[in-house]
Amino acid sequence: MSFEVLQDKIRKLKNPTVAGLDPKLEYIPPHILKESFAAHGETPAGAADAVLTFNRGLMDALAGVVPAVKPQAAYYERLGWQGMAALEQTIRYAREKGFYVIADIKRGDIGSTAQAYAEAWLGRVDIGGAEYAPFDADCVTINAYMGSDTVEPFLKECRERGKSLFVLVKTSNPSSGEIQDLLAGDRLVYRAMGDLTQRLGKGTEDKYGFTCAGAVVGATYPSDLRELRRRLEHTFFLVPGYGAQGGTAEDVQHAFDRYGHGAVINASRSIMCAWKKTEKDGLDYQDAARAAAEAMRDDIKRFVTIV
Amino acid sequence: MSFEVLQDKIRKLKNPTVAGLDPKLEYIPPHILKESFAAHGETPAGAADAVLTFNRGLMDALAGVVPAVKPQAAYYERLGWQGMAALEQTIRYAREKGFYVIADIKRGDIGSTAQAYAEAWLGRVDIGGAEYAPFDADCVTINAYMGSDTVEPFLKECRERGKSLFVLVKTSNPSSGEIQDLLAGDRLVYRAMGDLTQRLGKGTEDKYGFTCAGAVVGATYPSDLRELRRRLEHTFFLVPGYGAQGGTAEDVQHAFDRYGHGAVINASRSIMCAWKKTEKDGLDYQDAARAAAEAMRDDIKRFVTIV
Repeated sequence: MSFEVLQDKIRKLKNPTVAGLDPKLEYIPPHILKESFAAHGETPAGAADAVLTFNRGLMDALAGVVPAVKPQAAYYERLGWQGMAALEQTIRYAREKGFYVIADIKRGDIGSTAQAYAEAWLGRVDIGGAEYAPFDADCVTINAYMGSDTVEPFLKECRERGKSLFVLVKTSNPSSGEIQDLLAGDRLVYRAMGDLTQRLGKGTEDKYGFTCAGAVVGATYPSDLRELRRRLEHTFFLVPGYGAQGGTAEDVQHAFDRYGHGAVINASRSIMCAWKKTEKDGLDYQDAARAAAEAMRDDIKRFVTIV
Repeated sequence: MSFEVLQDKIRKLKNPTVAGLDPKLEYIPPHILKESFAAHGETPAGAADAVLTFNRGLMDALAGVVPAVKPQAAYYERLGWQGMAALEQTIRYAREKGFYVIADIKRGDIGSTAQAYAEAWLGRVDIGGAEYAPFDADCVTINAYMGSDTVEPFLKECRERGKSLFVLVKTSNPSSGEIQDLLAGDRLVYRAMGDLTQRLGKGTEDKYGFTCAGAVVGATYPSDLRELRRRLEHTFFLVPGYGAQGGTAEDVQHAFDRYGHGAVINASRSIMCAWKKTEKDGLDYQDAARAAAEAMRDDIKRFVTIV
């Protein structure tokens, strides 16, 4: 059920982190790009092939260390339909390797449009009586500025298929306060969004007590993180902002409950680009990524004990 | 510059409307589906071929009547990468036929991720020194719950390429008030979002006085529409909710300024599914769509005169 699958994987590996797969072309080692361009031309097809090769290599290196991956849709859309094909194949490979897959799509719409997104990313599509699973992630991120009309169609897929979602609640970026920190009555807007999320998920609690409707809460505002952890005891957190954006292990400890449950911390660049610090032209990108992921795990373990 | 291109087209055709291209499979006439499935199988590829054929037929029928089209990304993503390829081709065909293309993607992210989305949908992507335009729309919809960090990268593309965007401000759905109508200080949240949008667009005013940062404002809350028109005099509006969702021509008149400028009204189902009311099995879908688009134009013209 829902986040239970992720929490089980986290406990098994003693690692509450997720590796972002945000393949900017400059993150890809030169030898991979060279080979893909030689085979497919310096084209979107060539770039998409390099992305897929890089992702597979990273996942081979991270399997058994990191429980989850989080592909960021923007970097695939940027390569057009070829990029989207690479994203489909990335997700399929991730699931084969045993990763929990969070598709970071931040979609948000209403009614049958929201349903179409939910089917595309979590569900099945009926074509001529046969069922297809277009992207088939375990979990998605969504933006609920439009209210519960956005969340419900995704929740329906989550309930039916044991999947899960994260609603953007308090994000890690500098301007997140412009809307999210407005004071509405006695609540900040992001708290209202958090309350809405927990309320909508009610009744889907798993064996750890968390619903299938999680929340994105940035590491860069640690006091908000602590306060939301207390406020939303049944809500699983996805925490961006560790590392490159300035969040520390000390900051993110507040995302977890007293059992070390209920949160997963994301890092992207520090793992994908770890090879840039070893001066071996990326030939060691797998070893470098694995070492970076282990270092992150150990850093967080200084503050968080997972029961 | 920015919305000027759309406003010029609207004035030429005396029609301030945009036709949604939201191709659910049940909207497509049986003869088109049959032919595409025969050629490509009852598969995502077959469905995507039917979508593209239907869209092209609709656009052939609507050219010279409707100035703009608005493909809704969800219905293409629902068909996986094949659907995204059909979306690329739909946008290309729309531009060839002279339509202004609003990609209804409701994306929202930050930093280099927002930039990747902006490049994907409005801009260019550099691969090996050559430039590609992945989706190449004239305009996108975005969700700015994360604040100006989301808007800025899209604005940059708009400024550089004469393109434009719509920020979700007050949406047409029943639950839109859950977040958007929270009272923050002396402003409702959606007004804060509107003010943010107009402020960010400042300095990009076109010859009609509108910036390249527009706002989505639903037809189903006409008093909000009227109040926002007064409040945001430099902000162009995209107005969903006419027709199927209950908004009337009388309601949407409040979206326009005294010259009949500054807004475009969307209809999707009423045009795409017009053939379902004539009982000719969809063989007349083009005539039916054109007649429905003309009827909508004439309905709105009862209340709005475009100078």
